[in-house]
Amino acid sequence: MRHVLSALVINQPGVLAHISGMLASRAFNIESLAVGETDLPEFSRMTFVVSGDDRVLDQVRKQLEKIVTVVQVIDFSNRNFVERDLMLIKVRTDHGTLSQVKEMVEIFRGKIVDVQSEQVMIELSGPESKIAAFVDVMRPFGIIELVRTGRIALTRENIEATAIQDLARSKQTV
Amino acid sequence: MRHVLSALVINQPGVLAHISGMLASRAFNIESLAVGETDLPEFSRMTFVVSGDDRVLDQVRKQLEKIVTVVQVIDFSNRNFVERDLMLIKVRTDHGTLSQVKEMVEIFRGKIVDVQSEQVMIELSGPESKIAAFVDVMRPFGIIELVRTGRIALTRENIEATAIQDLARSKQTV
Repeated sequence: MRHVLSALVINQPGVLAHISGMLASRAFNIESLAVGETDLPEFSRMTFVVSGDDRVLDQVRKQLEKIVTVVQVIDFSNRNFVERDLMLIKVRTDHGTLSQVKEMVEIFRGKIVDVQSEQVMIELSGPESKIAAFVDVMRPFGIIELVRTGRIALTRENIEATAIQDLARSKQTV
Repeated sequence: MRHVLSALVINQPGVLAHISGMLASRAFNIESLAVGETDLPEFSRMTFVVSGDDRVLDQVRKQLEKIVTVVQVIDFSNRNFVERDLMLIKVRTDHGTLSQVKEMVEIFRGKIVDVQSEQVMIELSGPESKIAAFVDVMRPFGIIELVRTGRIALTRENIEATAIQDLARSKQTV
């Protein structure tokens, strides 16, 4: 099954190597990974999309929680959450197809961020399914290249927002 | 100095562990990392933002290129490129502040993706500086939590689009 996991980590060299090594040793395949800043400079948040057996996932979550630099792990599986992905994509255009591409970009609420004589660059964000649908729609025009961020997610409720500083403190004093 | 690097990799378990281990062993600090699908299911693209000495970066780039599962490495430093980041952010609101938050979201061309009685969730994409400016603007209202994807980038010109399949093939035959 496909799972979205989020780990709040302390910014230290080697934390990513530690986590990705642990996942690889358990043969967990990472479909996407996004590591970005939080509003606190000493922490980053990693969002993983992984596929694997549910029981193994539970082991992985527990292993992650044991890592000293990991402050908190959230499994989004049974939560009400918003998931987003971002893509930059370059598509071939000519006099005949530019207006068709532009129309599709508007339908998908994307943005054209660069235009050249025979190509456009488009920025599009949204759920995984929307991004995939847009890639399929662009394919006949000719995709030059694309890059995606991987998924990020936030729960609608606020379970995890309360105790981040406390959690970090408890980790540091153990 | 701050550098944006992009690596096209073959999807195999352990490739992230290999790369992040190499970066950690050279004390390269990863500011952000985004690993996402490409239009070819057998490849992913990793976009790193790293800070470190220019000479060391050149070594890192060469080390990356030696990894069998790494098909291509692009250093965006001297290139003309578009860079984007995506954020989901939950902000406290009340009757008095909701319209102010909504106005700021419109100015920054973000989207409100969830509304509850005392909070809104906002989706915002753009260059690093725009995201940082929006976080600063939201801070007085009360940031509950935020998550970011880390940067992705594409060059305006098409140097890297030509030979990806050829590069992959040459790696597999070596």
